[in-house]
Amino acid sequence: MAQLEFEAATTRGWRAECHRIIFGHSRRDERLFDVALIVLILFSVLFAMFDSVAQYDRDWGQWLRAAEWGATILFTIEYLVRLAVVRHPWRYARSFFGVIDLLAVLPTYLSLLFVGAQHLIVIRVLRILRVFRILKLSQYVGEASVLLEALYHSRRKVLVFVISVISLATIFGAIMYLVEGPENGFTSIPRGVYWAIVTMATVGFGDIVPKTGLGQAITTVIIIIGYGIIAVPTGIFTAAMVSGRRRGKSISCIRCGLEEHADDARFCRRCGDRLVQASTAPEE
Amino acid sequence: MAQLEFEAATTRGWRAECHRIIFGHSRRDERLFDVALIVLILFSVLFAMFDSVAQYDRDWGQWLRAAEWGATILFTIEYLVRLAVVRHPWRYARSFFGVIDLLAVLPTYLSLLFVGAQHLIVIRVLRILRVFRILKLSQYVGEASVLLEALYHSRRKVLVFVISVISLATIFGAIMYLVEGPENGFTSIPRGVYWAIVTMATVGFGDIVPKTGLGQAITTVIIIIGYGIIAVPTGIFTAAMVSGRRRGKSISCIRCGLEEHADDARFCRRCGDRLVQASTAPEE
Amino acid sequence: MAQLEFEAATTRGWRAECHRIIFGHSRRDERLFDVALIVLILFSVLFAMFDSVAQYDRDWGQWLRAAEWGATILFTIEYLVRLAVVRHPWRYARSFFGVIDLLAVLPTYLSLLFVGAQHLIVIRVLRILRVFRILKLSQYVGEASVLLEALYHSRRKVLVFVISVISLATIFGAIMYLVEGPENGFTSIPRGVYWAIVTMATVGFGDIVPKTGLGQAITTVIIIIGYGIIAVPTGIFTAAMVSGRRRGKSISCIRCGLEEHADDARFCRRCGDRLVQASTAPEE
Amino acid sequence: MAQLEFEAATTRGWRAECHRIIFGHSRRDERLFDVALIVLILFSVLFAMFDSVAQYDRDWGQWLRAAEWGATILFTIEYLVRLAVVRHPWRYARSFFGVIDLLAVLPTYLSLLFVGAQHLIVIRVLRILRVFRILKLSQYVGEASVLLEALYHSRRKVLVFVISVISLATIFGAIMYLVEGPENGFTSIPRGVYWAIVTMATVGFGDIVPKTGLGQAITTVIIIIGYGIIAVPTGIFTAAMVSGRRRGKSISCIRCGLEEHADDARFCRRCGDRLVQASTAPEE
Repeated sequence: MAQLEFEAATTRGWRAECHRIIFGHSRRDERLFDVALIVLILFSVLFAMFDSVAQYDRDWGQWLRAAEWGATILFTIEYLVRLAVVRHPWRYARSFFGVIDLLAVLPTYLSLLFVGAQHLIVIRVLRILRVFRILKLSQYVGEASVLLEALYHSRRKVLVFVISVISLATIFGAIMYLVEGPENGFTSIPRGVYWAIVTMATVGFGDIVPKTGLGQAITTVIIIIGYGIIAVPTGIFTAAMVSGRRRGKSISCIRCGLEEHADDARFCRRCGDRLVQASTAPEE
Repeated sequence: MAQLEFEAATTRGWRAECHRIIFGHSRRDERLFDVALIVLILFSVLFAMFDSVAQYDRDWGQWLRAAEWGATILFTIEYLVRLAVVRHPWRYARSFFGVIDLLAVLPTYLSLLFVGAQHLIVIRVLRILRVFRILKLSQYVGEASVLLEALYHSRRKVLVFVISVISLATIFGAIMYLVEGPENGFTSIPRGVYWAIVTMATVGFGDIVPKTGLGQAITTVIIIIGYGIIAVPTGIFTAAMVSGRRRGKSISCIRCGLEEHADDARFCRRCGDRLVQASTAPEE
Repeated sequence: MAQLEFEAATTRGWRAECHRIIFGHSRRDERLFDVALIVLILFSVLFAMFDSVAQYDRDWGQWLRAAEWGATILFTIEYLVRLAVVRHPWRYARSFFGVIDLLAVLPTYLSLLFVGAQHLIVIRVLRILRVFRILKLSQYVGEASVLLEALYHSRRKVLVFVISVISLATIFGAIMYLVEGPENGFTSIPRGVYWAIVTMATVGFGDIVPKTGLGQAITTVIIIIGYGIIAVPTGIFTAAMVSGRRRGKSISCIRCGLEEHADDARFCRRCGDRLVQASTAPEE
Repeated sequence: MAQLEFEAATTRGWRAECHRIIFGHSRRDERLFDVALIVLILFSVLFAMFDSVAQYDRDWGQWLRAAEWGATILFTIEYLVRLAVVRHPWRYARSFFGVIDLLAVLPTYLSLLFVGAQHLIVIRVLRILRVFRILKLSQYVGEASVLLEALYHSRRKVLVFVISVISLATIFGAIMYLVEGPENGFTSIPRGVYWAIVTMATVGFGDIVPKTGLGQAITTVIIIIGYGIIAVPTGIFTAAMVSGRRRGKSISCIRCGLEEHADDARFCRRCGDRLVQASTAPEE
């Protein structure tokens, strides 16, 4: 029993140590692991990209695929260790980064089951999803939450905006299909809608362009409307950002606990109690 | 007379029930109707778009037109029921969505009167206006009003901006017509204006491009000016959005006179006095 | 002498009447004059644009030139009347709109002196400057001043921004000239700078594009930098607009006359005197 | 010894005089030096640009190179004088503008050591770095610091943003490589990533465009996502600008504790008490 206790302690010690190294970001060895992981991810993605270039594939194809398998095995071990050391493995597996960690290793194994040139290319593209690992950087940087929060607060406005843009593009695409016609590249309404989106977003590939005078006049109108439309997401996001910054002083009312008071607030706006200035500085 | 009263009650019951299902958006059957309507509209628009693709029209043209007629008949019934159950049918018919509801069914019927390939295509494009129905989503989402209000408050600035852009584009189009000339694609001033709009709005199709050194130098100047111009609608809209958020509840504290309280404020944040809700709506 | 006095009165009456009609914008006949003027300007510009289209010039060239002369004579009379009825004719002649009014009629007269196809085209493009008259609309709309003031307050930031963009474009243009070389369209550094401006401003004509792998990699970097750069004028302008709106409450201190107080100010920030709330509403 | 003292005074006088002329920007001769320097830099850069145009190089190549050497010698003298008159020459040499001053003269001397057409072109492009001198203008204009500060405060958000954009571009590039394939121009994943960046940033060269229906549908989705993404840097920068303006003077009123006074405030706007200037600089 003493031995069992000792083992448990060791296991806990081993698991705790791993947990600290993998999930911690402050000590020397923890930061070393983070940097090594990011470097490995970056090289793995770069190799996958080089592998798609015909010339590199011909010359170093074997080495690139070996590196691919090496990275995959390392990521698999890391994934299993993560599952082993977290308190709630199932909760981690279903979390955002848990799913990404799994997706980052699956494509290489799937390439064994589904042979054939066509399918291999499909898997190769899924493989690139490993780049999502890099997004983990966001948790280091810590500012991503401000951006995501601003996006989250604007989600309904964004939905209305996207629906309006697609509706407008559909109407303009149909009008241009009618005006320009198949002989000028507008071979169908879906193609016209594609052109309208490309034009309104000011991308303007130039693969389809209006050739008739009327078509060019309508295009001018579409562009001026698109001018205004491009202002909308910027306005939504900027207002959310500015509003997020203004929320400012992180005082919480002692009586009712309300947070987010104005910068010059001296009384809680909900219960009327006097606010006591926090002594700690904002941690930005 | 009892029977008549009974009938009236039934009718009122039938009309009230329909009104509730069509115009309500909270209960289970009301939401079911909304979702069914949106799905039907989406499919109807998609079918109209597919119908314009030569290949699909050849293979499934008959089915697509049958679906088209089915959707039109359903929308017509829906329109008539709406007219029947609202208290002021004429007011509804003249309202924004009343006109759109009518426009959404008319094109298919018009295609019976005006035969001929040319005209049919015209009607097909009007038919796509049915997509405006989707805009009804905005009334569900409820955030559209914020966007529209911001646009409405900026309407005069937008007008000044659009006139300035068109004036600038006219002058630059004429200059480029002079500098580059018809041999480099600038065949007329209107075409030069079209190019100037495409360039200033940063669309840049590339169908017309400056070829001479002087023309490219002027283009550089136009683009830098356009750089500044694209900032204007964004600035207008963002300022309107930020200002709209800040306006908040226009209550002024009775004791200290502080204005601009948060939307959920019940006590003045400066003097702690209870805020008394103003009964009047904001008059701006 | 009585007659002379009568004449003077008549003259003054005639001049005052004309001044009222031309410079006023409130009564029925004043507004009629404004609308007639705008319509005439619009048609005159449209005719000048149509005149440049080869087909229209061939078919209706004579009529377009006749209309051109008609408009020019009307504008000349209007210009002379304006000079006659204003109190300080010389000050008007040197004012912004005075110069534009003169420039709007000069080109047609100049086309008499400088004959020859080449020169006529030059004059034709100056003729389009008449479109500046439309900018007079701004004085009706009245919101242009807000936009111009926001631009004016940002003039130094805009200068720094433009110099930075041109410097960056010069460096990137030179790098791309080196990397891609004349065989890929980058025939000289000025052409490379033109390409860099077109790319950084997200216009992207596509007349010159990177073909080598290294060139495309550098282009990606340029575009990401350009991504950030396009945010700068918008940020400058929006901040100026928001700040302009915030300045808000137009109270002037009774003691020291300082204007532009914060919305919640109760004491003058310069002399400490209590501010007295103005009874008039903001006139927006 | 008296002579030595006299010499020291003279030297100090000569050095102080030079220092005043070179680093001062207020008196007549100081401003004359600044303007002469800027004009010389501008012409030098223009000559380097003209030298790259084949036609100008053939006609005036010798003169352009002579002017190049003249400018280089003048800049070298200026650099040495700067080193001689500043109190800490080594600190100046390592400063931002010290390094730029050196980089502005080095390329011409390097062109002596590394002969050969290939290398000469490399040096020529380095030579254009002299344009950085123009950035010195920023220290005259003085508003650059506001822009740079706004960028500096947003540096972490910008990093998160750039990483997100590159990640998205990698995934979309791979998907398009799969969907469109080498036969439609997407010859490799890196090329697909290049296309995705060009598209998401709304540049849209049009050298690579989707040809299949599925590819165009995915492009539409990418563009709509890019629509939102272009709002992010603008939002970040604008919020930093607005916040920078609002921050103002960080004085808090001693009596009522109100913070955020205007830059020229001498009395608290809430209680009218005199503000006491804080001696400490803002610590953020």
